[in-house]
Amino acid sequence: MRSKRAVVLLSGGLDSSTTLAEAIHEGYESYALTVRYGQRHEHEIDAARAIAGKLGVRDHIVAEIDLKQFGGSALTSDDIDVPKERWPEDLATGIPVTYVPARNTVLLSVALAWAEVLGSSDLFIGVNAVDYSGYPDCRPEFIEAFENLANLATKAGVEGASRFQVHTPLLTLSKADIIRRGLELGVDYSLTSTCYDPTEGEACGQCDACQLRLKGFEQAGVQDPIRYRNA
Amino acid sequence: MRSKRAVVLLSGGLDSSTTLAEAIHEGYESYALTVRYGQRHEHEIDAARAIAGKLGVRDHIVAEIDLKQFGGSALTSDDIDVPKERWPEDLATGIPVTYVPARNTVLLSVALAWAEVLGSSDLFIGVNAVDYSGYPDCRPEFIEAFENLANLATKAGVEGASRFQVHTPLLTLSKADIIRRGLELGVDYSLTSTCYDPTEGEACGQCDACQLRLKGFEQAGVQDPIRYRNA
Repeated sequence: MRSKRAVVLLSGGLDSSTTLAEAIHEGYESYALTVRYGQRHEHEIDAARAIAGKLGVRDHIVAEIDLKQFGGSALTSDDIDVPKERWPEDLATGIPVTYVPARNTVLLSVALAWAEVLGSSDLFIGVNAVDYSGYPDCRPEFIEAFENLANLATKAGVEGASRFQVHTPLLTLSKADIIRRGLELGVDYSLTSTCYDPTEGEACGQCDACQLRLKGFEQAGVQDPIRYRNA
Repeated sequence: MRSKRAVVLLSGGLDSSTTLAEAIHEGYESYALTVRYGQRHEHEIDAARAIAGKLGVRDHIVAEIDLKQFGGSALTSDDIDVPKERWPEDLATGIPVTYVPARNTVLLSVALAWAEVLGSSDLFIGVNAVDYSGYPDCRPEFIEAFENLANLATKAGVEGASRFQVHTPLLTLSKADIIRRGLELGVDYSLTSTCYDPTEGEACGQCDACQLRLKGFEQAGVQDPIRYRNA
């Protein structure tokens, strides 16, 4: 019997790289999907390519979609600075300015399109509800709503040949747990890219993402192998 | 009070053009969104621009996303011919080969991203459950599942400031009813493009989409203003 196929969203960061390693470990023939949504950090794409190659995927597609032209996020807009030190939050909700509108909805939709063509009913995404930075589209109820949508949206779902499942192996793990698990699975974290605002291959060490990463490595008792300019 | 904003998906076809006219008629400050998903028919984009200009939108964005690289549909793949005369269907489901995997999921996701940036909670899409060609993502249950997802996915939904609504003004109309309504609202159907396989500005008159359109105009008792090569 042919092994089951899965589409794995791969940004090139720590979480998605660990998620890909998990999918492969679980025996899925893995198809990595990187979506360029107009983010500033091109280096993430290079990291995704390196990780996909190292872990051994069946195929890797980089799909372009320009969310940048809508504006609205520090991660995609040139008009909003990436916050340093402690990032500002919406006081009512704690959702940071680095939130990209509808990002995971768009990412999962594109993954669903590829999965349906591949005859796959398994998607993997590295969302996390513990150290999740307050993004609404990282919560379990969002994931369940997407699974429900996927089964109504697609030919495969309507035919009942398969039930779409969105796998979130990191959902309840702390950043330190994710790092420990990734190291067990052989993830080379020196290839991953996390920083929202890197320069010349060096992470800033100060943005939201860097702080979460550094804290995770510290709590895991492991040295982070990437270079920081201000750590 | 500022008028309410809506994002309207506009392909340049008959249905989406009528939908845009309806959104404007209902008093929405309308933002037209055309998604190029690697379809063969570039002429649709030109049609969308002409319609958006004529009906008077606040802004019109053409977003690119290459679903073509996934393959899987006669509308996006060079390997599958667009069917002529009567199009072949999956015998079990009646879903035609022109089905684009997860298309409306992707389109609505991108529309949601823009809506959130605009502070809009209203999306318009010209899906139709009467003459709907058998696409699973044109059904009311799909639309409801997307509304549910949108309210969980977004900062606006989490904050409870607004409840996302997906408006489907054509859902229960026949093609003839759509055309009658569009003419009432002043839609210039000579600008719209419907054919899956046009050449030099002429529609084929034979594909699924052309047949539905021609039958609609016939039943509405109106002459279709576009040119056909084989009607």
